[in-house]
Amino acid sequence: MTVKPRLRVLAGADIALGPGKVALLDAIEEHGTLVGAAQVLEMSYMRAWKLVQTMNVCFREPLVETSRGGTARGKAALTPTGRAVRDLYRAMEGACLQAVRPLWDEMRAYLDGEP
Amino acid sequence: MTVKPRLRVLAGADIALGPGKVALLDAIEEHGTLVGAAQVLEMSYMRAWKLVQTMNVCFREPLVETSRGGTARGKAALTPTGRAVRDLYRAMEGACLQAVRPLWDEMRAYLDGEP
Repeated sequence: MTVKPRLRVLAGADIALGPGKVALLDAIEEHGTLVGAAQVLEMSYMRAWKLVQTMNVCFREPLVETSRGGTARGKAALTPTGRAVRDLYRAMEGACLQAVRPLWDEMRAYLDGEP
Repeated sequence: MTVKPRLRVLAGADIALGPGKVALLDAIEEHGTLVGAAQVLEMSYMRAWKLVQTMNVCFREPLVETSRGGTARGKAALTPTGRAVRDLYRAMEGACLQAVRPLWDEMRAYLDGEP
């Protein structure tokens, strides 16, 4: 039994940031290419590219910079803004989890399979 | 620009509770039937019925009781456990929102369109 905070940052009709986009930021940092990040997350390159475009337009500065205009061979990296925003998102998840803990303990008592 | 906490309660492979299921609990309370609740949420009766079954098996006691074996004409109502769990979920959302506020203020500064 676990509780997962899935925070969604809305900018008008767009989802500027959510669990999937933040996982993509982590994967880009780890793999250094958009095609590698997409593969490890089992999404198409086109989908990863679209998620990056959405993030990049929702924030004042891009979160991800791609070389060679975003082609599959090009490198991708988080910008300083990208790292700052990703870190803030993870901190928000942590703050949320900590804040819900007492209520979560109450809810667990209602769940089946808890001692 | 807003941030929405979408808390997901996992019980093994099942999602015992999440934003959609809690919206269904609210709609059942408001409408008194599963078919009415499904309509207002623009989901099929079958989908609403399945969501209720998942919730009911994940918790020690059912969250929703249906008369007439869950047929479309039957009434549906939250049990005391259903109300308690729904209220705890909403309280968790509120606690999460409050906890993330300072970090959210930091993140807003990175978003486009903020003054």
